[in-house]
Order: sequence, then structure tokens, then C-alpha cells
Amino acid sequence: MAKKKRKSVVVIGAGAGTFTVLSGLKKYHADLTAIVAMTDSGGSTGMLRDELGVLPPGDVARCLVALSTSDKLMRTLMDYRFDNGNLKDHRFGNLLLSALEKTTGSFERAVERVGDILRIEGRVIPSTLDKVHLMAKVGKRIIRSEEKIQMTKMNGSLERLWLEPVARANPKALQAIREADGIVIGPGGFYTGIVTNLLVRGIPEAIRKSKAKKMFVCNLMTKMEHTRNYSVADYTAAVEKFLGGAVDAVVYNNRKPSARLLKRYAREGDSPTSWSSLPEGPELVGANFLSERETTFQKIGTPSKEASLVRHDPARLAAAIAKLVGVKKKKKPVAR
Amino acid sequence: MAKKKRKSVVVIGAGAGTFTVLSGLKKYHADLTAIVAMTDSGGSTGMLRDELGVLPPGDVARCLVALSTSDKLMRTLMDYRFDNGNLKDHRFGNLLLSALEKTTGSFERAVERVGDILRIEGRVIPSTLDKVHLMAKVGKRIIRSEEKIQMTKMNGSLERLWLEPVARANPKALQAIREADGIVIGPGGFYTGIVTNLLVRGIPEAIRKSKAKKMFVCNLMTKMEHTRNYSVADYTAAVEKFLGGAVDAVVYNNRKPSARLLKRYAREGDSPTSWSSLPEGPELVGANFLSERETTFQKIGTPSKEASLVRHDPARLAAAIAKLVGVKKKKKPVAR
Repeated sequence: MAKKKRKSVVVIGAGAGTFTVLSGLKKYHADLTAIVAMTDSGGSTGMLRDELGVLPPGDVARCLVALSTSDKLMRTLMDYRFDNGNLKDHRFGNLLLSALEKTTGSFERAVERVGDILRIEGRVIPSTLDKVHLMAKVGKRIIRSEEKIQMTKMNGSLERLWLEPVARANPKALQAIREADGIVIGPGGFYTGIVTNLLVRGIPEAIRKSKAKKMFVCNLMTKMEHTRNYSVADYTAAVEKFLGGAVDAVVYNNRKPSARLLKRYAREGDSPTSWSSLPEGPELVGANFLSERETTFQKIGTPSKEASLVRHDPARLAAAIAKLVGVKKKKKPVAR
Repeated sequence: MAKKKRKSVVVIGAGAGTFTVLSGLKKYHADLTAIVAMTDSGGSTGMLRDELGVLPPGDVARCLVALSTSDKLMRTLMDYRFDNGNLKDHRFGNLLLSALEKTTGSFERAVERVGDILRIEGRVIPSTLDKVHLMAKVGKRIIRSEEKIQMTKMNGSLERLWLEPVARANPKALQAIREADGIVIGPGGFYTGIVTNLLVRGIPEAIRKSKAKKMFVCNLMTKMEHTRNYSVADYTAAVEKFLGGAVDAVVYNNRKPSARLLKRYAREGDSPTSWSSLPEGPELVGANFLSERETTFQKIGTPSKEASLVRHDPARLAAAIAKLVGVKKKKKPVAR
């Protein structure tokens, strides 16, 4: 067989959503690069930032795990959360990245080294190496830090969203975007995850200039505080605003999650993203992208902890993205 | 060249002293096994025991680092000590072992896995897998835990030293002892490190029965609280008492550390081990075993942080042990 250059796919995001995209796409013949938000300031990551002065490890750690080809134990270890004493709530993967940043003096080298340990296929690139915080002006209030912004009700009055100090793009992120055949934006925490990458100076410009197919994977749910009642059209318009340009395709779910789950979300004021209003312009890929765990639950009716969140199904989401970019599935599946 | 079976050397100990022996011996053609004390209850290790209910990782971590053939960064990472916030004073290597113990459910598997990550040559075996504490009866007082015993002045009135609950030997430790060609006991914290291995049920018996050459590496210094004014003969007698039998050889230092260093130790009431009284019976190997860092300092007169402790020189100590066991140096030195 003739060896062709693999297509390169860049996934831009933050936490769980990007984990899902990467987990699915790693079963395809594509060179994967994750460009990861660097604004997390809560939980274990927030404590490490405050106490050690390190860059935020959490989202990067999750992406490294997503691309890992090592055995399950190493991935379980990375996700292990200490449950007691002074270490309570710290994730082991975060401690590993922070300790390596301290010993090497470089977050980038720490990320590379953990990539070696986890035998990742692909690359994980922090969108910026500057120590920044997310800032929001909501009405007349200015709110500092992702953690606080996450809890702030915007009620449609988000005036401005920016990073402080100004974040310069990681040159490796820009290069990956330039060379990409496909760029996947989302899904994930919207204003506090996905969009924060687009606030890094140089990144939206690079995406706009890139010849890659630009795909937006729309969130399954809306979040009362930030994206209340957003439709697929609203989400897409918001992404395009921060991008300063249009996306080529939008991948959206068109199946309603179970009443049981929706009830749980409704308690927080969250509802499923409506597909009654769709963007005009981009190619539209609407399908049932709900996680099988949830759909299995709907069929069998046995609740489980894993079926308690509305999530994308990694396999079906990856298949849709792969079709848009034009990459094929690997014959031998990667060990999971 | 005909391939001969390598000789097997078992090193029994705890922290820094055992690290030194292993670091030196790994440059020799020998199958190395470290059998490590499991009674540490202070510092980072003590916090982890208290808060997570794990087995003590500290001494095991140090031995794993000693046998590592991975690059310097991994070893530096293992020794990295967090210096701030809730993580303050925790060593990364300890967190790694404890998180792995939690995720695998087995300290032994955690040790094996870290051994893989660090690409160790040799084996590290906890002397027991029971959760035990060191107990001491000093005069009429009963003191619980290694950390507290370490600070207790014994003044020659140590009535009894034992483990609670009764510690059963790790079967792998017994097997290694049975199959050993050489057994090295010490150096290291005496009653709170070296000897605690000999309190594990089955270990002294196995050593006595083993056909291995039994070598005691005598401590360079005495410790005011526990081994005040001990001579080489006193140390040897104490080891033989806990062993319930004789050793075949005693390796002791016969060069006085610098006045500068001795002054520093004298403040704590510690003094160099006297070689004016030597044991009768065992083969005696007396030489200058002081760390070159200290001897270099004596020659050049430039103080350094590393020259602030009286330590064995790993190379000369290993050469003496190797000669006693009959193993040769590797031609290509192991990367350090």
C-alpha cells in the first residue's frame, strides 16, 4: 500500500467535550492536535495555580489522557482524585503536570514528558503559555477568573469577555492551525472554555486564514447562567462572533435527551439546545449524537452514574467529523 | 563469552543509607533486591498514612529512584518536594506510590508499576505488607510510631522494640533472602530503619538460614538519642542481637570526618562511630568510606550544601561489598 500523508485535525477546546472528541477521533487515521484552554481557575487546578504559581494543568491533563495509548491503569491514575486530608480534591494528573513544571521549569516540557509517559498519539498544545485569567464585563460589573464567571448569571448582558494580561498565542498552536486540514471547535463549557481559546491574540486570525475545514460542534445543552435558551443558530453566531469569521460546518444533535435527565438539568435552569433555529451558511450535520450510555439507559431503564449527564457519543461524533474532513477509521481499534 | 548467572545481592534497609548502597552497587554485575522498612510514620509519608490509610511510600520511593535507569528528570521528579500550600512537604514520589496504591488496590502492584516507569534494574520489596507501627519500651515508657521513637532519648534503657500488630514477612522478601549470594544490612537510621526489618516475623530466621554472605555496613555516626557513643563493636552486637545470629563481615569507616562537620553534629550530641572497639568473629573491612564530597571539601575547602552531612561514598562502599560477594564492575557505567 502506498503511504499517504495523514490528514491533520486540530481540536480546540477545554475539558470533557474535547476529551470526547479526541477519544473518538483517535480511532481514525488523522494526526491529532489538541489546543487547550488555559483559563481554568477552579478546583484542584485553581488551588495549584494559587499555591504553586503554575499554569493550569487540568484541561491539558484530560486531553493527554484522551490521546493516551497506555494501559487503563495509567489513565485511571491520571484521573485519580485524592479523597481525604490536605490532598483532598487534587487530581493526580494535575499534581504530575505541576510537579514536572516545577522541576523542568517549563509547562510545555512537562506536557511533553507526560505525553511520553502516557504514550500519547498526537499532540497536546496549551493555547497560550502566559499566565492569564478570564475576565468578563456583565452589565456594569467586572468579574475576574473563570471560576467566578462560571457562577455569574449573564442574562444576555455580557458586554465583553477578555484575558488579563493579554495572552499571546503559543507559536506551536498557530503552526498547528496553519497546517491543519480540519479544525474542530467545541463542544464544552462555552464562554468559560471553548471561547477562551479565541481570546488568545493570534488564534482567531490563524483559524480564519487556515485552509482547514472549520467545524463547530454545538453543545448539547444550554447553561442557564451563560447560554440560556440558546439554539444551534445562537451558539454558532456566538462562536463566529469571537472567531471574527464563519465556520464551514456545524455538527449538532437532534435527539431529545430522556425526560429523566432533562428534569435533573431543569432544576439548574438548563435545557437542551434547540435545533428549531439553525444557522444559515455552514454545512449542517444534524443527527443523534447522544451518548450511548444515555440511549442505552432509555431502552433498558437501569440508571447508572454514567448515565446521569447528557454527553456526546464519542464514536458517532467522531464519525461525523471524520466524514467532514475525509479521514478513514483505523482497522485495528486502539486499546481502550 | 559464556553467560554466567549473575550473583544476587539483597540490601536490607530503609532510606538514605540504602539509597547509597544501591546507587553504588548498580554499577556491578549483580541482581539487586532492596528489602525496605515499612515503619516510617513521619513527614510526607506519615501524612499519607494518616490521611489515606496507605502503606508508607517514602523509603520504597527512594530505593526505586536508586535503582532507576531512566533519565535524571524522572528521578528529580520523584524527589520533588512541594514547597507551598496544602501540598507543602509532600514528595512527588510518595504521592505517585500512594495514588497508585489507591487505584490498583495493592501497594505491591504500585511499587512494580513505578519500577516500570522508572525503568529500574533490580527489585524493590517491602519487608512486610501489613500496616504496622514501630513500638518501643524505653525504661517503663511505651512509645508508639517511628516518628516519636526517633525523638526519644533511650539512654541505654531500650527494653524492647517491636511492631504492632505483628508483621508477617512479605513472601517475596523471604524468597529473595533464601536465594541471595550476599545480604547487606545497613547503613541507615539504626533502631528506626535497619532494625525494623529484623522485627518482621520470618525475616531474621530467613537471613540466618540463608547461605548468603551476611555483611553489616556500620553507620558512620552515632545518634545521641539511640546509639550514643556506639563503637563498631557495639553496632555489630546490636544487629546480631536482633538478627539472632552472627554476621560474616563488617564494613566500617576508619577515617575521621572533618572538624567542621563534627562540630555541626556535636551540637546534636552526635559523634563519629569509634573503630577502637571492633567485633571479634566477622571478617573486618575497614577503610575510608567517607563521601568524596566531604573529602573533596577537606582538600579544597569550599563548603557546599552537599558536603554538610557525613555520608558513605557510594563507589567505595560498593567496591568493598562487591569484593566480599565476588561481583565485577560493569564495563559501561549506568547513566546517572
